[in-house]
Amino acid sequence: MKDFTLCIPTKIVFGKNKISEIGKYCAEYGNKALFVYGQGSIKSNGIYDIVVNSLKGKGIEFIEYPGVRPNPLVSHAKKGIEVARKEKVGFILAVGGGSVIDEAKAIAAGFFYEGDVWDFYKNTAKIKAALPLLTVLTLPATGSEMNGGTVLSDENTKKKFGFINKHLCPKVSILDPSVTLSIPLEYTAYSVVDACIHLLEGYFTHDDTWSPIQERYAEGLVRTIIECMAKIMENPKNYEARATFMWAATLAWNGIGSAGLGGISSPNHLFAHILGGHYDIAHGAALSIIVPGWMKYKYREKTHRFAMFAENVFGIKNGDENKKALAGIDAFEKWFIQIGSPVSFRDANLSIDELKLDELADDVLELADIWDIKEYTRESIIDILKLCL
Amino acid sequence: MKDFTLCIPTKIVFGKNKISEIGKYCAEYGNKALFVYGQGSIKSNGIYDIVVNSLKGKGIEFIEYPGVRPNPLVSHAKKGIEVARKEKVGFILAVGGGSVIDEAKAIAAGFFYEGDVWDFYKNTAKIKAALPLLTVLTLPATGSEMNGGTVLSDENTKKKFGFINKHLCPKVSILDPSVTLSIPLEYTAYSVVDACIHLLEGYFTHDDTWSPIQERYAEGLVRTIIECMAKIMENPKNYEARATFMWAATLAWNGIGSAGLGGISSPNHLFAHILGGHYDIAHGAALSIIVPGWMKYKYREKTHRFAMFAENVFGIKNGDENKKALAGIDAFEKWFIQIGSPVSFRDANLSIDELKLDELADDVLELADIWDIKEYTRESIIDILKLCL
Repeated sequence: MKDFTLCIPTKIVFGKNKISEIGKYCAEYGNKALFVYGQGSIKSNGIYDIVVNSLKGKGIEFIEYPGVRPNPLVSHAKKGIEVARKEKVGFILAVGGGSVIDEAKAIAAGFFYEGDVWDFYKNTAKIKAALPLLTVLTLPATGSEMNGGTVLSDENTKKKFGFINKHLCPKVSILDPSVTLSIPLEYTAYSVVDACIHLLEGYFTHDDTWSPIQERYAEGLVRTIIECMAKIMENPKNYEARATFMWAATLAWNGIGSAGLGGISSPNHLFAHILGGHYDIAHGAALSIIVPGWMKYKYREKTHRFAMFAENVFGIKNGDENKKALAGIDAFEKWFIQIGSPVSFRDANLSIDELKLDELADDVLELADIWDIKEYTRESIIDILKLCL
Repeated sequence: MKDFTLCIPTKIVFGKNKISEIGKYCAEYGNKALFVYGQGSIKSNGIYDIVVNSLKGKGIEFIEYPGVRPNPLVSHAKKGIEVARKEKVGFILAVGGGSVIDEAKAIAAGFFYEGDVWDFYKNTAKIKAALPLLTVLTLPATGSEMNGGTVLSDENTKKKFGFINKHLCPKVSILDPSVTLSIPLEYTAYSVVDACIHLLEGYFTHDDTWSPIQERYAEGLVRTIIECMAKIMENPKNYEARATFMWAATLAWNGIGSAGLGGISSPNHLFAHILGGHYDIAHGAALSIIVPGWMKYKYREKTHRFAMFAENVFGIKNGDENKKALAGIDAFEKWFIQIGSPVSFRDANLSIDELKLDELADDVLELADIWDIKEYTRESIIDILKLCL
């Protein structure tokens, strides 16, 4: 157990028909909200009306700020900051998936910052204050509803950077699994990949201190998520499977799983962020392209950890550590394929050549530096990317 | 997944030598503390000096209120409330184990309540406000450092009652595993029993909704705690084992494990509290006396759950559900014996006769009513107690 500080102050309100309570919770934080959402799907599925009625019922004024896209843009966040300031809102309400919540966090922090909000993402400035943020989660995956993490992209430089700060933890997040029943299987697959990799980044990268709490936690949740996805593929309207996945995704990246592991790194997210900046690709898809290649490159360094993963997640018991490790990587890759998430650049129809590899490697190196990940060289990055072609 | 609301706002500061930071955290909540502690062991092991120096370093005035005993008394809490009011303290600092923290919670809530603080424990009044509470944990077991739970005893009526309220969550809890290295094996055993049963109350009593998150969470932590205890018995100064247990005990009863399980009940704690009220016995010891008897009485109702416990915690794979369930109960009871926790009234030298059984049953029924546990009759309670003789 390494030393750690942990605080997860977000109040989670989980269950059917809980979204209509959002006004009550908002009223604790002010009477004027910036209401941030995405491309408008919340209007067609009825969530918008429920939220608006709940806000009006509590006499809360709100300024709509729609248009957040998947892989949300810093330019859009900056405009949101201007709107929030001009309208003098007292808090932010984000209704959507991780993208919407992540951009809302940028607006919440940028509201009080004189400089360029992108500074936070480049780690050249630290957040000192942020507007209160409340969320209604519609797409479980990123865990952003119960952590201080945020990821944005800069469309000019094609960079996609992210960081974690305690001021960005939502005050209240409402999780109603019934709104996830209609998420297409393709996007559900990307979401389950994301949640699994959140659990496994620390699992594979922490030093070898004895860590049974964190290992059993990660294995239990990954096994649960795999079970959920099987049930959802069988019946996308299975409430229990959707609800269990929704909560598992939150638990996957809220700080509990990595507390005590010490300095973990997130190499798969590092690579996937760079892919997401360069290509219009879902985050989970980018991860499933990278993960098998990264695992094949890395398993020799901590083979026992990969063997443990194979045994405790996939029940692979035969062979020596090396054999088990490889069988586990193979099982994980096959699972990605089975659920419909790409496992190579080719699968995702991404054009890639020597030149592009160089460019990606440059950007991976830059973000690795910002995230203080030291172990990758230009050569090792290109080697890993080549395993993903 | 059942609907739930979860908020765990406590900041956990975990690690070696963190106790000396307590003054810094206290300064966020005021400049005058009621400093609650127990029988004085913190003076002999040096913790008292570290705390006092840290408080003085931040210019924080403190009124000492020592003398909390194991199975803390409501009469002592009431005097503490008077002292806190007279001295107009701004917050409470509890330094000790679950008993000290639990009594400090009573003082924190009683400070603002005109009536008898015992009303909260009888569930005839609800807490509306409480003084901020900070804790330094010296004996991991109860989870009180990261939850809103409190248990007190009334020495006149021999009743030991407890409840959970969100206002009682500590603001900050410092967990330094190095101060637990000297806890005698006997008390360590009682502590690990308590933490395990916190994880298992919901596991065995929730309805049969599919609950893989919560089941894997409980199993992983119970297995971890069993591993920790084996290492501690081998070498009581094993920091990693002590630290891992310390964090496991916090995670065992902070709300994460039961979130989504719906209405669980805590029958083993129900019985153990009554024992703790009638006899001068450690809480963990009372639990290990009750648990095997309770399991033997109850396994027929949800045999599959007891079989799952046997398989996933003790690796028992042979036989039908009934056989596995019984083998799991047997393995658990043997583990209690192995670590030195009593598994019968006789083991603990508790005198018990027909008359006493009646009296215990009355009190179990009374607390069951307060806790809204409906399934036990006087007869079934006596039957369970007889299985524990």
